[in-house]
Amino acid sequence: MGLVTLLTDFGLRDAYGAIVKGAIAQVNPGLQIIDLTHQIPPQDVATARFQLMNAYPYFPEGTVHVAIVDPGVGSRRRAIAVQLESGFLVSPDNGLVSGVLSQNRAIAAVELTHTRYWRVASPSLTFHGRDIFATVAAHLASGVPLLDLGTAIEIESIISLPIAPSLRVNHTIRGSIQAIDHFGNLITTIPGSEVEGKVWSVKIADLMYRSSATYSDGEVGEILALVGSHGWVEIAANRDNAQMQLGVDWGSSIEVVLREE
Amino acid sequence: MGLVTLLTDFGLRDAYGAIVKGAIAQVNPGLQIIDLTHQIPPQDVATARFQLMNAYPYFPEGTVHVAIVDPGVGSRRRAIAVQLESGFLVSPDNGLVSGVLSQNRAIAAVELTHTRYWRVASPSLTFHGRDIFATVAAHLASGVPLLDLGTAIEIESIISLPIAPSLRVNHTIRGSIQAIDHFGNLITTIPGSEVEGKVWSVKIADLMYRSSATYSDGEVGEILALVGSHGWVEIAANRDNAQMQLGVDWGSSIEVVLREE
Amino acid sequence: MGLVTLLTDFGLRDAYGAIVKGAIAQVNPGLQIIDLTHQIPPQDVATARFQLMNAYPYFPEGTVHVAIVDPGVGSRRRAIAVQLESGFLVSPDNGLVSGVLSQNRAIAAVELTHTRYWRVASPSLTFHGRDIFATVAAHLASGVPLLDLGTAIEIESIISLPIAPSLRVNHTIRGSIQAIDHFGNLITTIPGSEVEGKVWSVKIADLMYRSSATYSDGEVGEILALVGSHGWVEIAANRDNAQMQLGVDWGSSIEVVLREE
Repeated sequence: MGLVTLLTDFGLRDAYGAIVKGAIAQVNPGLQIIDLTHQIPPQDVATARFQLMNAYPYFPEGTVHVAIVDPGVGSRRRAIAVQLESGFLVSPDNGLVSGVLSQNRAIAAVELTHTRYWRVASPSLTFHGRDIFATVAAHLASGVPLLDLGTAIEIESIISLPIAPSLRVNHTIRGSIQAIDHFGNLITTIPGSEVEGKVWSVKIADLMYRSSATYSDGEVGEILALVGSHGWVEIAANRDNAQMQLGVDWGSSIEVVLREE
Repeated sequence: MGLVTLLTDFGLRDAYGAIVKGAIAQVNPGLQIIDLTHQIPPQDVATARFQLMNAYPYFPEGTVHVAIVDPGVGSRRRAIAVQLESGFLVSPDNGLVSGVLSQNRAIAAVELTHTRYWRVASPSLTFHGRDIFATVAAHLASGVPLLDLGTAIEIESIISLPIAPSLRVNHTIRGSIQAIDHFGNLITTIPGSEVEGKVWSVKIADLMYRSSATYSDGEVGEILALVGSHGWVEIAANRDNAQMQLGVDWGSSIEVVLREE
Repeated sequence: MGLVTLLTDFGLRDAYGAIVKGAIAQVNPGLQIIDLTHQIPPQDVATARFQLMNAYPYFPEGTVHVAIVDPGVGSRRRAIAVQLESGFLVSPDNGLVSGVLSQNRAIAAVELTHTRYWRVASPSLTFHGRDIFATVAAHLASGVPLLDLGTAIEIESIISLPIAPSLRVNHTIRGSIQAIDHFGNLITTIPGSEVEGKVWSVKIADLMYRSSATYSDGEVGEILALVGSHGWVEIAANRDNAQMQLGVDWGSSIEVVLREE
């Protein structure tokens, strides 16, 4: 019983995401399909990279993750599939999969060149999700070996979209906001491992906020810093929206200040 | 073949809801998962309670309903599971399940204290959905007995979030608006059984509106009162949005007026 | 293993769509369910017709498509089911299925009059999705023959909601915008077959835009015309939103201009 996940910028108003599922079911109606999200902002590969990287560890071995944010569809960008120790990725080669690859070991990769695994040999130039990615993923989840799907490529040749690493100078760690979630929580680029077991605060626009273990410490509305469920330093507000309170946005600078010991 | 439903305030932009599904599939990939909704307003336990209560009767026996609106995550609020005659609930103990419990008989309840049914023994303090509720629900839907999941608790000890009952004085029933749906229909706290077989109208802000059997009676745009599919007195507009027309909001008072006979 | 799809205007905030799924699972928990979309604008039968028509070809043979945009629920409009060569439709008879019927051959149709296939013999007058369409579709996907579900009707009697055909005069084809997708792409009423193999441009509000094969030709932000994945002439902007740039709306006129040869 194979499992396929979908991450796209198709939204939920149109049937595009459902058409991808239909094309998967046309290959193998026994596959299970789970939506990661279809609400990546249009053409925002960086947000897609972040969401895929965070969701990847929580799926069963052998899951096939299809990720389609594809502003270059129909151009010369490659369509690829990657085999990792714990699962598979199927995506345009535009940096989308590079977050997962930064945290997990890849075994092999191919460019999707074998048209017999496509829905049609002459795919639409505007909807490779339906005509290439869906059916390739369905075959992969049904047991077709990765190397049958196309020409082997070097894993190092896959396009990377790195985030700027956080920088520690003495007792200060500088980073930025790499994602803002639905609750208004600000997820930074500073790994939780940098603050583990330490006494620390965060500094945003010259104001300091204390660290905490949970969202519900302190007063209602209080701004708190904690290590979020993704494993990154995160800034939240108790029963409130930190982004609205602080007025910061994607990419804003923040600092973690460690207490000297 | 087990069935699990999910109701959360996670939204659909982030992969949080999908991560809960992945954690369920890691326990048992054969379970079927249905989303009740992920669009409860953030931390709005009352709306979550209403939606869960309305959806509960329409699922097969044995369905496990996971409901996560959890502003107190990581604090001392209990995590619970409840066995009813027709299904199971898994949720934080914050009033969320109390609507279902007001309409259905519970058989047993536990506090989720047995860490061997969690994803990890030391769960994230900010994401019990992933680390506790998902895996506990997956085990329950796979046949693990309720009482294995933790310490038995009194059903009466589960936190209640009651709605103010409607009040009848002579030929007038006073209530309020307990929910407003996507169509702008206003769902009141007055049970349909109070008006069944009677001639009645509703009064909002000193104006009277007649009762009807369907949304499509009368003129386009006409305000009508009826007994909605949930079983509550509801105010709607024929092919239009009653909330926008009337400018009322959650909690607004309304009256049903019964004709004297 | 049967497959059911759902297309509604229920939105995703309320549990209405989930309740339809629960009612399906009550009949047969082994059916697979895929959402086409629940975000049809309330009561917008024309958009529902368009989305269903576009998604229909990409599902396996025998799929049961349930489509519920039903402003006349509870009135005398018929509830129908249609058998096509490649699948089934279950819907109110209000024009919703007429797009699929314009492109696919129907074999038989019934009015849903046999209450033994309903959830209850006295359905809610406001929620036939739950009480009639869900359970009828579940029985159909489980192998109940179409003609058991009700009284046979003439296929020609099914209500049609035609779109105005495009009109060619010499080298000019006049049409209009029949849909605007989540990306802001403008989908016209002009079939792609009218421009295939030709040199052509589009004219909107007296400005001309060149045709292209893909979204990513030309400059970022450039307006381009192409044959979209639906098979209609479409106007898009490279990595941008054509609707916002052009300020046009549903129904706006456009022209395709063919180069004389």
